[in-house]
This record gives sequence, structure tokens and C-alpha cells, in this order.
Amino acid sequence: MNLVMQAGERRDPSAALEPILRLVSTGMAEVNTIILDQARSEVELIPELARHLINSGGKRLRPMLTIAAAKLCGYEGTGHIKLAASVEFMHTATLLHDDVVDESDMRRGKKSARILWGNQASVLVGDFLLGQAFKMMVEVGSLAALKILSEASAVIAEGEVMQLAASKDMTTTEEEYLAVIFSKTAALFAAASEIGGVIASRSEAEQSALRVYGTNIGLAFQLIDDALDYSGEAAMLGKSVGDDFREGKITLPVVLSHRRGTVEERAFWRRTLQDGDIEEGDLHQAIALMRRHNAIEETIERARIYGREAQKALDIFPASEAKAAMLDAVDFSISRAY
Amino acid sequence: MNLVMQAGERRDPSAALEPILRLVSTGMAEVNTIILDQARSEVELIPELARHLINSGGKRLRPMLTIAAAKLCGYEGTGHIKLAASVEFMHTATLLHDDVVDESDMRRGKKSARILWGNQASVLVGDFLLGQAFKMMVEVGSLAALKILSEASAVIAEGEVMQLAASKDMTTTEEEYLAVIFSKTAALFAAASEIGGVIASRSEAEQSALRVYGTNIGLAFQLIDDALDYSGEAAMLGKSVGDDFREGKITLPVVLSHRRGTVEERAFWRRTLQDGDIEEGDLHQAIALMRRHNAIEETIERARIYGREAQKALDIFPASEAKAAMLDAVDFSISRAY
Repeated sequence: MNLVMQAGERRDPSAALEPILRLVSTGMAEVNTIILDQARSEVELIPELARHLINSGGKRLRPMLTIAAAKLCGYEGTGHIKLAASVEFMHTATLLHDDVVDESDMRRGKKSARILWGNQASVLVGDFLLGQAFKMMVEVGSLAALKILSEASAVIAEGEVMQLAASKDMTTTEEEYLAVIFSKTAALFAAASEIGGVIASRSEAEQSALRVYGTNIGLAFQLIDDALDYSGEAAMLGKSVGDDFREGKITLPVVLSHRRGTVEERAFWRRTLQDGDIEEGDLHQAIALMRRHNAIEETIERARIYGREAQKALDIFPASEAKAAMLDAVDFSISRAY
Repeated sequence: MNLVMQAGERRDPSAALEPILRLVSTGMAEVNTIILDQARSEVELIPELARHLINSGGKRLRPMLTIAAAKLCGYEGTGHIKLAASVEFMHTATLLHDDVVDESDMRRGKKSARILWGNQASVLVGDFLLGQAFKMMVEVGSLAALKILSEASAVIAEGEVMQLAASKDMTTTEEEYLAVIFSKTAALFAAASEIGGVIASRSEAEQSALRVYGTNIGLAFQLIDDALDYSGEAAMLGKSVGDDFREGKITLPVVLSHRRGTVEERAFWRRTLQDGDIEEGDLHQAIALMRRHNAIEETIERARIYGREAQKALDIFPASEAKAAMLDAVDFSISRAY
């Protein structure tokens, strides 16, 4: 039974998230306690800013994957909780720095931290959270998990620099775009999943399968995110439509539309994204061009392919509640776009 | 023989640095190779920016302390090299983020990275270097060293946030100032020294002595730095005099001058540092007020006290070339102010 195929049939995409939410609920409650505890500091600004982020309603998909993967692997210890919290801190630190780099005003439908507390605090609190993340990993004491997460940390930053360099560059190819999202998004999803198997001391084949699962769900997730930025459903997810457009980010819907565009259309993309000369109605026009070239639908189609790869990677594991929940989580990542 | 007392007699302060430079020269050559190697990336901007920092002529005192401490402890392995390189990367990442936070235009007499490549690249390349630092630490495989360095990483960021919160605040006390420099500077000096003993598996008492040494040389180093910012010798060190003044940083020379100042003088400090309303001649006036209240000399005197504490901490170790070099390094840190 291919679960991805059901995605289109579902009315409510969040229904596909329910099995994993149920599976990890106890673990995630512990993760949340640790997150609040580790964001404490006598320096007032730190818990203040951290609380803002913690309460901002992210889904915490990444730490959920760590907990779910540990359960899939029959792990009975407690190390996965701190590892999951580390993953979320790494992600939060990235968001803080990203908002500074992208000069974003909004994050998940709320004013971004850099608007409320300034760029300076965002940079430094991000550094603090990263430090706390590594402290927690060390407390768990698994050098193998530390290796995976520290490598992810460097790769994520590399991906962000790559994205910065490709920003406003209309010659960006599909391959270059994929290299960016592989680093900046899929690397942390991959690490989050893999460490669940590592902490459970499972075989290399199983650890590797979890890594493949994480990489592919991460790619699917980012592709859908990039599609949503040009579609009406984004507002429902607390995102403002057109953020990527205004920031000159060259995402796949743009790459596809530009590649297939007429001379006039290419001039439109250069003016808006490369030169940053955006007039009223341009976002509307961008969406119209994407529709003309089927760019959103094809971005979603690519996400479906990665989603199927993610699900296929779990073939190595016997059926279980955890496995079913992780398969459904892939559906959720993709069906958000409907 | 109290080496600090000789500091005033020395003609050339860098003479006191020679013994440690000689001691660590082979090790530091290996550190430099690793630094260049680890700053490599297919993302061009990363090695470009990293090379700028690497060639910018910092003294690399922190990694030198790691190598020297390992030698002091008779360490025969190779792990200290990667740990030292990690320490330097952590420091470089902090410098990159600091320049963004302080909006600094210059660093060691050259244009700062953020002026040459922008704030965005500085934030992200800092993150990359931090990731590489943790990767190297993991490769060494000492969980004890990882614990010390990850804790330092969180404490440094905490100190930077503290400094940001205290910035432009004329009610900052000497104690609050000390808490800032303890975190933002002394923590990394302490970690750098301690891990030399940790990697050599020395007794807790010896590890702790190295930590005390590092903390105190770090405090002395920062106090002298803060004094130099208001003295003519700064230019020689590639620093521009008055940076802290222009950035509204409340350092000890300011705290002492403000505390002892008349009503008019306090109004001057509030106008310039709190309100940021700096006119021509104000830096000159600030230096004159510091002279009147002996604030620079007393800042240096406090550095001398910490320097003596650093040297005393090494009493637990028998005489050796390494010990003598580490004692002299303290003299160097202080005699820079002459």
C-alpha cells in the first residue's frame, strides 16, 4: 500500500500528522521541559527571546523524528530526549540567524525575533542556543551522535552560505537549488532521524536507512515549503505568501518558470528577483507565470517523489506503530500543499 | 621570583611572548595547516572569508595555551592539535559575530569581514566555523574536552548577550563589567588551557589549576585590551583607539571614571556613551577624564593582580620550559599596555 498516493484523497492534511503526534507525545513533553529548562539564563534577554520562539507554534517535526526513530528501533533509554532537544535548538538557532540574513520581518505569522529584539540579540541568542545544544549532546555521551550532529551543523551553515551566494542569481540551476536545500534543510532532518538509530545501537544498514528517510522527507518538506510560498494556503500555515519573492530567493518554482519562460518573462524574473525592483502586482504576475508553466504542481510532484523514497527507505524495518507513524509523517509533509 | 614585577622593566613587550612562541612553534604550524584545511569548502565565499581572518595577523594566544598546557602536562599524543584548532575556530566565529553585533568597521587594523563581505556572510561563515570546530573536537574523541568546550561556547554567547544588554548603560557596575569579561573572554582562555591537561589525563587538581590559570590570564588580557582602547599604543596593535567609546561599550576605565566623576563629568559620560551623541574632541576629553581619575592605570593594576593569580595557579607544576613559557605569556598579556 503506497501511503503517498492517499495524500490527495485526504480532506485534512494534519490528520496524517496524528499518528506520529500520538507516538511521540510523552517524549515530546519531556523534550519541551528540557527546552524550557535549557533556555534559562540569568541574562534576561535569553529566556525572553527563547520563550518567544518556543511559543511561536512550530511543529517540531525534527525532534519528533528523533523520538520516532528511537522508538522504531526499540530504544529503551532516555538519551533520545536530550538529542531531540539538541536538534530543536540547532534548528531554532538557524531560524534566528536566517531571519537576520534574510532581513525577515515575520516568522510563523508573528513578528520575527530580530524585529522585536534586534539583529544583535538574534545573532547572539542563536549562538547561545547552539552552545546549549552541544552541551546537551555531550551529556548524552554518544560520540557517534555527536559526529552526525556536528557534521550537520557545518553542512547547514554551508548550505545557508550557498543560498546567500545564489540569492538574486537568475542563472541558478535546478541542481544548484537542490544542493542548497540538501544542505540547509535535509541535512538536519537526516541527522535527526539517524541519531534515533544510533542511540539504539542498531546496525549500520538500519542507521543508513533512517538517514535516507530523513534526507528525503527533508527534501520533500522544503520543496512543499517553497511551493507554499506562492500559494494561498501559506497564510493558513502562518507564513506570508511571497516572502521568498520579496527576498529574491531562487526556489524551484522560479527556476522552472524562468527556464520555460519567454524572453519577456525572463526579463520579468530578472527585474523582480535579480534587481529587486518589485512593483505592485508583480507577485500576482509571478504566480500567474508559475501557473502557466505548471511550476508549482511540478515542484509538488518532485516532493512526492522524494516522499516515496523516504517511505521506501523504511522497508528494512518490520511493521510497527512507529513505522506507520513515520510513513504518515511523510504524507503530512506533502499534503500540506493541498 | 615574581615575573610580573619585571614587566615594567622590559623594553619590548613581545620579548615575553618569545618563550611560548618557541615552545609551541611545531604544534602551531600543525594547527595552522589544520585551520587552512578545515576552512575549505566548495562554497567559495567560505575559504575566501576564512583566509581573510586567518591572515589577519591575530596572535593565536588561545590555541597556543592549549599546546603549551598539553606540553606542560607531558602529553605525547596528537589530539591537542585539533583541540587547539577548534579553540581558534570558536574564537574566530565569535569575532565574526561580534563585528556584526558591534557594527565594527575595522578588525586588527584591516577592514572587518562584515565590511568586505556583508553582515550576512559574517553570520553564516561564523556558524560554519563553529560547526567545523565541533567536528574536530568530536574527531579527537575526548568527551571531557567536548564538555569543557561546549560549555565555554554557551557561556561566551551568554557573556556577549550580557554585554549587549549593558551597552550604553551608565549604571553598569564594576561587578557587572567583570561578569561580562569573565564570560565573553576568560571562559575561552580557561577552556583552552584546561583541555591541555584533560587530553593528557592529568589529575583533577592539575586540570583545575590550568583552568584557574586560563581564567586569570583571560581576565588580565581583556582588562589590558580595554585600557589600550583609550591609549596611544593601540594603534601599534592594529586597533583603532576609541572603538569602545564610539560603540558605547561600558568598560572598566569608563566605570571607574564615571564613579569618581563630578556631576558635570557624569553628564559627559551619559551624553557620549548612553545617548551616543559624540562630538569632535569627546574622545580626547574622555581620555583626559580617565587620566584625572587614574582609571587607565588602575585598570592595568587590576590586570596585574589577575596576572599574578594566573602565575600562582601554576605552582602545582614543577619547573619546566613549558611552565616558564606560560608564566612569561602572562607578562606579555600585561606588558602590552606599556
